[in-house]
Amino acid sequence: MKATLDCLECFLRQALRAARIASDDPAVHRRILDETARRIPEMDLAKSPAVLSQVIYELTALFSGRPDPYCEHKRAQNALALALEPELRRLVSESADPLDTALHVAAAGNVIDLGTQHEDDIDVRAALDAVLRERFAVDHSEAFRKSLAKCRDLLYLLDNAGEIVFDKILIEELARHTRVTAVVKAAPILNDALFEDAKAVGLTAVCDVIDVGGPFVGAPLDQTPPAFLERMRRADVIVGKGQGHYETIDDFDGDVFLILKAKCEVVARHMGVQFGQVGLISTRLRATR
Amino acid sequence: MKATLDCLECFLRQALRAARIASDDPAVHRRILDETARRIPEMDLAKSPAVLSQVIYELTALFSGRPDPYCEHKRAQNALALALEPELRRLVSESADPLDTALHVAAAGNVIDLGTQHEDDIDVRAALDAVLRERFAVDHSEAFRKSLAKCRDLLYLLDNAGEIVFDKILIEELARHTRVTAVVKAAPILNDALFEDAKAVGLTAVCDVIDVGGPFVGAPLDQTPPAFLERMRRADVIVGKGQGHYETIDDFDGDVFLILKAKCEVVARHMGVQFGQVGLISTRLRATR
Repeated sequence: MKATLDCLECFLRQALRAARIASDDPAVHRRILDETARRIPEMDLAKSPAVLSQVIYELTALFSGRPDPYCEHKRAQNALALALEPELRRLVSESADPLDTALHVAAAGNVIDLGTQHEDDIDVRAALDAVLRERFAVDHSEAFRKSLAKCRDLLYLLDNAGEIVFDKILIEELARHTRVTAVVKAAPILNDALFEDAKAVGLTAVCDVIDVGGPFVGAPLDQTPPAFLERMRRADVIVGKGQGHYETIDDFDGDVFLILKAKCEVVARHMGVQFGQVGLISTRLRATR
Repeated sequence: MKATLDCLECFLRQALRAARIASDDPAVHRRILDETARRIPEMDLAKSPAVLSQVIYELTALFSGRPDPYCEHKRAQNALALALEPELRRLVSESADPLDTALHVAAAGNVIDLGTQHEDDIDVRAALDAVLRERFAVDHSEAFRKSLAKCRDLLYLLDNAGEIVFDKILIEELARHTRVTAVVKAAPILNDALFEDAKAVGLTAVCDVIDVGGPFVGAPLDQTPPAFLERMRRADVIVGKGQGHYETIDDFDGDVFLILKAKCEVVARHMGVQFGQVGLISTRLRATR
């Protein structure tokens, strides 16, 4: 997906938010904001918003001196989500359609994202109820079931810490049908899950966990190591969580399903949904529409 | 009032909005956005947001080739407000407290502002009802009445086209007590009222109308001609409408009253109100709190 002019404006907002999370020093905030502003004229709108936004987080780490400013937030989000885990698992086990419920649970987990929302806005339980009630605004779950039926190797690209507990619930369901490999980031970027998060929430006991090869927003395949691209090509089915993956692997030639909440107007428009709605989107199904 | 880091982020949003109003060409939008971004690192937060934002509108005029991109909007807003004029006048004439109602009518008129809101968000009649119902969140109208009682020369700094019809209703009430001089912009800036707007809505028949000496956001007294500063000093009472005046004349040493709706979080916080609330604020009363 390509960036828009609205993304450029949003980058400055993201920069200020990241700066404030990384530092208490207004001079540092100013420097991160200014340096981000200086990069804007160079930004190529043929690239994805995810790729363009990466510089914000590099600048934030550089000027705040904190390579992992979301560290405490990630731990807190993992703990918050782990507290909900028994409830999530019960929802799925008591469901008449466990896979369907697990898919919606995983989507609800995507609400946890400090990158585009304020922490206080997040009410996980309310989000869960809303997603289970409102369901996917774009729903390619029938195509997903068909792909899953013949899948032997599913690659599951994780998004945020905390959210990965919700993903674990879905991955447990998927693991009844196929081998699953989960993908984390290789180094800190925003509140994205690292290997240590996967381990902390017990995901490493449920499936293989590999990393994408760098601290990327999403999985920009022109930046990831060749080995990761190969791994993508070997997978029968790829599940990508969140806007970062929506923006970076939506044009990958594979059986890609994207599960996400539309957290900005630009992505909502691209998804064909309203701001705030969730979707389970098959990129193949959409391409043939 | 001084600008904040949040203002810098907002300037890029304002630039994109102004660019889209002034031009249909995405290349022009990009250029206005980029040039605004390039100015951000130079911006001095000791200045007011109003003063810092002026460059956006200079760049918009420059790169779009349109010195008055809000021209049609202003005409439409004048027409819209004129259609409401009989209703506004009836509200005041039938009120048990005509001055109080006229003050709230003038505040309601401040909802019309393309600078910080989308056109479709504006429902003038609903805004009028809301303001009359909710009243001023900061209400220094008793101080205003006292000042008005001994006032012989009131300077009324107008804000937007359309809104000036609402101001006319208030100015008619004020004119029962004092001489009133209304102030427009000397050249186009945003949707701010010019002399032609004052004439179009019949304000020139109600009071004297002068101009501030330039195309300013608000009335930045370090930029206005010396004659205007002299005029400010001669006035017994000054009424400033809207955020631009709130941001630029709030520290002027005079009997200043500001009537506005808080259209951004930064100004709302500074006013001590919630986003979207309206206030009638005496800068002297606030200073002595």
